[in-house]
Amino acid sequence: MIDSLPAPAKFSTTALTDPPECLMVALAERTYPIHFSSLRHFVEGKWQALLSRYSAVQWITHHSLQKHYGDWLNTVTPPTLPPIVLPDGESFKSWATLETILSTLLSRKLDRQAALVAFGGGVIGDISGFAAGIYQRGIAVIQIPTTLLSMVDSSVGGKTAVNHPLGKNMIGVIHQPQSVWIDTQFLRTLPTREFNAGLAEVIKYGLLGSEAFFVWLENHSAAVGQRDEKALRALIAQSCQMKAEIVARDEHEQGERALLNLGHTFGHAIEMLTDYRHFLHGEAVALGILMAAQLSQSLAWISPSDVERIRLLIQSLGLPTVWQHPFADNQELSQKMCFAMTHDKKVREGKIRFVLLRAIGRAVLHSVDDLSLIAHAIRAVAR
Amino acid sequence: MIDSLPAPAKFSTTALTDPPECLMVALAERTYPIHFSSLRHFVEGKWQALLSRYSAVQWITHHSLQKHYGDWLNTVTPPTLPPIVLPDGESFKSWATLETILSTLLSRKLDRQAALVAFGGGVIGDISGFAAGIYQRGIAVIQIPTTLLSMVDSSVGGKTAVNHPLGKNMIGVIHQPQSVWIDTQFLRTLPTREFNAGLAEVIKYGLLGSEAFFVWLENHSAAVGQRDEKALRALIAQSCQMKAEIVARDEHEQGERALLNLGHTFGHAIEMLTDYRHFLHGEAVALGILMAAQLSQSLAWISPSDVERIRLLIQSLGLPTVWQHPFADNQELSQKMCFAMTHDKKVREGKIRFVLLRAIGRAVLHSVDDLSLIAHAIRAVAR
Repeated sequence: MIDSLPAPAKFSTTALTDPPECLMVALAERTYPIHFSSLRHFVEGKWQALLSRYSAVQWITHHSLQKHYGDWLNTVTPPTLPPIVLPDGESFKSWATLETILSTLLSRKLDRQAALVAFGGGVIGDISGFAAGIYQRGIAVIQIPTTLLSMVDSSVGGKTAVNHPLGKNMIGVIHQPQSVWIDTQFLRTLPTREFNAGLAEVIKYGLLGSEAFFVWLENHSAAVGQRDEKALRALIAQSCQMKAEIVARDEHEQGERALLNLGHTFGHAIEMLTDYRHFLHGEAVALGILMAAQLSQSLAWISPSDVERIRLLIQSLGLPTVWQHPFADNQELSQKMCFAMTHDKKVREGKIRFVLLRAIGRAVLHSVDDLSLIAHAIRAVAR
Repeated sequence: MIDSLPAPAKFSTTALTDPPECLMVALAERTYPIHFSSLRHFVEGKWQALLSRYSAVQWITHHSLQKHYGDWLNTVTPPTLPPIVLPDGESFKSWATLETILSTLLSRKLDRQAALVAFGGGVIGDISGFAAGIYQRGIAVIQIPTTLLSMVDSSVGGKTAVNHPLGKNMIGVIHQPQSVWIDTQFLRTLPTREFNAGLAEVIKYGLLGSEAFFVWLENHSAAVGQRDEKALRALIAQSCQMKAEIVARDEHEQGERALLNLGHTFGHAIEMLTDYRHFLHGEAVALGILMAAQLSQSLAWISPSDVERIRLLIQSLGLPTVWQHPFADNQELSQKMCFAMTHDKKVREGKIRFVLLRAIGRAVLHSVDDLSLIAHAIRAVAR
């Protein structure tokens, strides 16, 4: 077995010291900007010019945001098109909710020149993006991510989806947004657990492509934990820039983009086996990253001290490093995990394809068929 | 009001005298071939090589085809992946059927390297193409159209969709097939009414882009009605070539591709108002083409004798030229039609956008807001 891909290009880390106001995701005619700006500022400025492009603008958000920002939402939405407000939570990222959104758009007679605004976290972004991707074969969507996870990950790259009882994100499309607007003020009120969960994807960027970013996170973990404005701007811009570069080179996940799944093959299985209830996505990804690190160590690609550095960073950013699994014994645990992973999208010809680490800052795609190695990596994290 | 578009490019009619074995739909990295060949021939030849590209191949078809070709289907499908067989009819081109297909693909563990084969008419092609477009964010689909309508229209161009109670084809994606295989033998057993319905789209190609093709149809209507093999090959190849050229120039329906909707704004409304039960799609399109011709005449773009020529060709090809509508009076008829058309995808800023005729062989996009003109065109066809 050999690595499926050459080492990825080196990523610049200038965003950490000098965060840009605007980043472009370069995708030919679907190129779009990520703006870093206060929401109030852009609603009063560029936003109006942007809205004039569309026949109608339909906001989609969830209950908690509506509670916090309802008055403000009323000032930006016309009375005829009140926001579509979904219940909070991943369990509503479903086929049934999607149908409800589409029926609402149709009953409100939105035409093909309309746009959706996804105002919320990953669930709102994913389901609104998917609705926009299939409504009348595709209308515009503007992403306003309000959680750390959606700022650094799901709002960039155009992946949209809903979950299915047989697997997470199994149904969806790639549908690029018209623009993304990131305002870090939303992070001030984000619950600690959810904030920390977002950091799992940030750690992922350091691990898969930039040791310098990983080291920066080790050195700034306290400032990040205190939600220092400057540190947040830096790590979000750095993460978005890395994701934008990867997506621009590989929009349809033929190769390099798959590296963004580091920690996700294990992570999705953990989420599925705990009914998407016990862990937030980022928490499951953190555990998945640790399992992937353990598996990389079993292949003698990284050292035990590398694994320990990764474990320490995950821990210092308030994320779980141990999974108290609910199964009778290790055998049942391994069987359930392997079964869940073979339902994952990353299965190729029966082997399970992982993103593993050649070093801190260098990930590769690798198929593993030795189930005992996989079981060992799982058991090192699950108790 | 002015025409939204310049006159389209002239279309060659060499396919009428010298039909090609293979046509390419030129879409950069999504370029794909349309093969004209016997199904038996390509299953024994190129087909096997083609199948070896995929981790699994899942056929989707409907009850009638399974009844006719069940034995043969058993020889091309593995026992572990029997064909997904849908009930016949447009009413099954639904959100619920789509969910059933997706759940079956997941429960059979098809991965992202799998392909679907859509073996059937427009309903099978549209829903299978849509399922392929959103399963794990997009897998391959091979189209084997078995009706005239799907051969000349829906299998080429990548439009996929399901219907919604509030409108036809309202939910869908553009997802290009890997290849299309057209075998005219399937037309031998096609019921007359369904065969004739397919001819509506063929007339459409002549009207929108090639007077020479229109004249050819006038001169060959008897041979076409008798399903003369040579005439069928010619008109299918000519239609596919015109559609392929238009789609290659405008994949995402920003401009010229909208001309393919000639007759469809009125036609969809007729289908909707008759609950998709009374008319086959092509029959409604034939009536819609006549209404569009009448509206063009009201604008003094074409002459009454042009409208009469169009009416005669539609009639000679066994299609309806009069709609016995179910409403109390003309006023209710016009109101219902206009209401239905404002739910159509082609609405722009409240005006209804039609494809109208500048001449036989030259269509343009045109927005009409004078409801009395529209009502007049409807009443000229609906009694």
